[in-house]
Amino acid sequence: MRTTKLLLPTLKEDPADADVVSHKLLLRAGMLRQVARGIYDFLPLGLRAVHKVARIVREELDLAGCQEVLLPLVSPAELWQESERWDKYGKELLRIKDRHDREFCLGPTHEEVMTDLVRRDVRSYRDLPLNLYQIATKFRDEIRPRFGLMRGREFIMKDGYSFHVDYEDCRREYENMRAVYTRIFRRCGLTFRVVEADTGAIGGSMSHEFQVLAESGEDLILSCSKCEYAANVEKALGKSTGAEPRYGHSTLEKVETPDLRTIDEVSAFMSEPPERFVKTLIYFADGKALAVLCRGDDQISEIKLRALIKCSELRLADGEEIEQLTGAPQGFAGPVAIELRLVADQTLRGCEGMVSGANKKDAHYRGVDHEAHFPDAQFGDVRVAKAGDACLRCSPNAAEPGLLEAHRGIEVGQVFYLGQKYSQPLGATFLDADGNERIMEMGTYGIGITRTVAAAIEQNHDERGIVWPVAIAPYEVVIVATKWDDDAVREASEAIYEELRAAGIDCVLDDRDERAGVKFNDADLVGYPFRITVGPRGLKDGKVECKARTATDADEIAIAEAAGHVASLVRQARG
Amino acid sequence: MRTTKLLLPTLKEDPADADVVSHKLLLRAGMLRQVARGIYDFLPLGLRAVHKVARIVREELDLAGCQEVLLPLVSPAELWQESERWDKYGKELLRIKDRHDREFCLGPTHEEVMTDLVRRDVRSYRDLPLNLYQIATKFRDEIRPRFGLMRGREFIMKDGYSFHVDYEDCRREYENMRAVYTRIFRRCGLTFRVVEADTGAIGGSMSHEFQVLAESGEDLILSCSKCEYAANVEKALGKSTGAEPRYGHSTLEKVETPDLRTIDEVSAFMSEPPERFVKTLIYFADGKALAVLCRGDDQISEIKLRALIKCSELRLADGEEIEQLTGAPQGFAGPVAIELRLVADQTLRGCEGMVSGANKKDAHYRGVDHEAHFPDAQFGDVRVAKAGDACLRCSPNAAEPGLLEAHRGIEVGQVFYLGQKYSQPLGATFLDADGNERIMEMGTYGIGITRTVAAAIEQNHDERGIVWPVAIAPYEVVIVATKWDDDAVREASEAIYEELRAAGIDCVLDDRDERAGVKFNDADLVGYPFRITVGPRGLKDGKVECKARTATDADEIAIAEAAGHVASLVRQARG
Repeated sequence: MRTTKLLLPTLKEDPADADVVSHKLLLRAGMLRQVARGIYDFLPLGLRAVHKVARIVREELDLAGCQEVLLPLVSPAELWQESERWDKYGKELLRIKDRHDREFCLGPTHEEVMTDLVRRDVRSYRDLPLNLYQIATKFRDEIRPRFGLMRGREFIMKDGYSFHVDYEDCRREYENMRAVYTRIFRRCGLTFRVVEADTGAIGGSMSHEFQVLAESGEDLILSCSKCEYAANVEKALGKSTGAEPRYGHSTLEKVETPDLRTIDEVSAFMSEPPERFVKTLIYFADGKALAVLCRGDDQISEIKLRALIKCSELRLADGEEIEQLTGAPQGFAGPVAIELRLVADQTLRGCEGMVSGANKKDAHYRGVDHEAHFPDAQFGDVRVAKAGDACLRCSPNAAEPGLLEAHRGIEVGQVFYLGQKYSQPLGATFLDADGNERIMEMGTYGIGITRTVAAAIEQNHDERGIVWPVAIAPYEVVIVATKWDDDAVREASEAIYEELRAAGIDCVLDDRDERAGVKFNDADLVGYPFRITVGPRGLKDGKVECKARTATDADEIAIAEAAGHVASLVRQARG
Repeated sequence: MRTTKLLLPTLKEDPADADVVSHKLLLRAGMLRQVARGIYDFLPLGLRAVHKVARIVREELDLAGCQEVLLPLVSPAELWQESERWDKYGKELLRIKDRHDREFCLGPTHEEVMTDLVRRDVRSYRDLPLNLYQIATKFRDEIRPRFGLMRGREFIMKDGYSFHVDYEDCRREYENMRAVYTRIFRRCGLTFRVVEADTGAIGGSMSHEFQVLAESGEDLILSCSKCEYAANVEKALGKSTGAEPRYGHSTLEKVETPDLRTIDEVSAFMSEPPERFVKTLIYFADGKALAVLCRGDDQISEIKLRALIKCSELRLADGEEIEQLTGAPQGFAGPVAIELRLVADQTLRGCEGMVSGANKKDAHYRGVDHEAHFPDAQFGDVRVAKAGDACLRCSPNAAEPGLLEAHRGIEVGQVFYLGQKYSQPLGATFLDADGNERIMEMGTYGIGITRTVAAAIEQNHDERGIVWPVAIAPYEVVIVATKWDDDAVREASEAIYEELRAAGIDCVLDDRDERAGVKFNDADLVGYPFRITVGPRGLKDGKVECKARTATDADEIAIAEAAGHVASLVRQARG
């Protein structure tokens, strides 16, 4: 493609309304335009990147035995009522009425429609398993669409659903998809972690997220320095590697701490480190109050707490409730003589000589012990793991277990075991070999196609622009002719362009009548992985310059070899 | 792909709710399922056909210098208000509100959104021309969705828009697109006509439709037996080849025709052929009454009439108005002594000895002449052309002009000259070489991708099922193993399957444990263009059978040659 023919409206300035790097660069590099909040036009180069990701996804899924279908964006309310999500799903589900006043929604996900398709046409165990996917536009009416393609309203997703005779087969396919997704994101040229994830609102009981590592990521993930273990911080398991909380037994002593409520304040006042404190939070679990303890430098993970005590509703008590329950205002709760059910993080087991609130205004205790003051607490893992924790996955086997490292991540894919969450209410059943009617087991597997493009940019850019991984670059090579009005430059550029095209390389010829500097800036902004520069000075020596976007310096190559040389670099890098 | 792994739920019976062949066959062949009225799931084979059409479209457009973009389905009301279509467009435009009560619509077409994209980023004549297209889901809230993919609500379309500095360049691109579309539908393997079309409600002033010929087509088109001329019947030009309406001058004579109102009734009663009658219709054009005349065997074309007299609103008078204006009830109007503006079809020029209504109840005249009774009528082409008319396009040059032939057609594509219909209200302007701001000229070009799939089936089927053109067949070859539990049959089938796959042929191995008859029926229903049958009897002689879907008989081919033979047939037929 020639730049003079290409719609590639690059911008010199950062657009004011873009708040993350990928959004800024997609706008500046002429790949994306906003139509309404969270709703975008994809310009030619942006769409090419989307198509490249989609092609990799399609190839790998087809190889893995999945079948592509296409379900409608506009879905009838009836199906969502059958699954009971019509009422439960929040306002992200955009409900609409057609001209006959019938209710529909714009599908943000397609469990119902896909399960309906399968229940109508699949009857026998012989027709299972089945793994069906689509690559299609979805709509989710985000209350505050932001971050460009990272959290848009209209976006392109690959969503897949598998159907099985039993749990074992569903589990097998789950592992299969986990492996396929790993291949997909590897082929896209991305650095990512496969993390154990909370199963959240969608339901089901097993899930992994594919997180592209990037400083701007919304998710905090912890991964082991030695083994494969990685998890969303909400769910990560780690063993504290701080000092054991055993400071020796001493008599309980009350300390006046007027108006000092936070651990940091009391810690500074008493000259004791935060890890010596027993942090005490008052919760209501399914309406009943309880006190939850952890070390002063730790945080309570509500996800873990919920799982440990098996409650469905969980909330922190407010100041008034705390005062009623502990006899003291917020900031002075502690385990000593408290008349509440106690749950404690396991790091506090056997602790001695700790500091805690005294359940009295403006007072704390020194000398708090597990055995003496909260012997009946229920212990479990309820703390949020953190960087530096020992990995629990490798600790039983390894002499020196790995330590958890913290990363920021962008979720680009998720695999999910659904069980019978949708097949049961929608009646997706089959006849087994003995003629008995049974309910199918399901899994669901998603990849944010447009989000993957954004995540690739968040991870791969520098101050000059995008640095595309070759496999998903809109074009792989740009040929910059530094002086288009020079006959020799023009002819050499055209020849290299034709040779690259004939070799099946996606390339752009910058044939504009512009200064070399403008062309170089645009090339870096757009992020072509390779650049061939053709200029009058080099041509005199029979040379052109070849430079990778990631390299600092260019190589001089004989004109006749340039196309072949770059073509082979591209092929190596395509993955 | 193996049928045991494929979601291909064929049905034995015609589904009750399908009203055209393509809809029935898409359902029966397991390619499509209805989700709601006019809203469908595409199953794997249906989607493959859609993708094949889309790929041909993409390849040809890219070769022709068009650039692919992707615009959102959900479009903001503001843009439609700027073009004034928000209020004018009927209920097919599904208007919706987001969670913040902002108004949007589901885009049935994208003139506004595309023009908005271009006006924001294109400023200079140097950036023009530009031809941008997308292949995307559209939504049109049809009041009565019907005929399956032929008139659905959610459908896939290619819509393209071009932008130009002036009319000449827009006209050049219009001709370019007409040629590209011709190549596209030829590559799809379809028999079609490029017809001159009415420009209808979308606006603009030049348009061609691409009509796939099929008996079930909604459109009636006339095409010349000798030249390229073809037109929608509403607009077609033809010269009547019936007898000249000169029956000799005679005195005006009134005939009693009690209660005989239609030409057929009066014709039978008076023993005069319908072509001897002057048919007289009373219209209101922009509120003013006029009488319009044509021969008794012709029909008035309101499109032509509108164009001739340059009116914007046109309607037939009702019975009461006719009585007021002519002095007689409906059925007795005629040109003699009528006090209305007269417009007559040109076939009546110089007519003599005709029959017409007498503007009196229960009375007609014999002996009506042009010169004597309506000398001041305005003459023009206002009749609907019909099969058998002489072609006006070739008549000036040819000694024997071609005759018009009638066909039924399905509109699958349209090219449209828009002029400044959208660029003017939306302010899509550019600076010309002299620095003057000018309004862009636009064209628009559409192809119904899913409709093309349906039209292909309407045109290509028999009583046993679909007969896919090879270029858009979901799979090109099926290998039917007549006895899957026979080791030799299984091995030979697998070998041919692998060889075809390696040769890049899209093939299916029917590896089900089913009777040969079931497999043959499914193969014909699904419409694979080629079938290779592997059975125990043939194998004994070292042979398999190869049969084209269109052929009656199969050929016996040596096992080792079968794959190569069929692969070369497929390649020839791909086009």
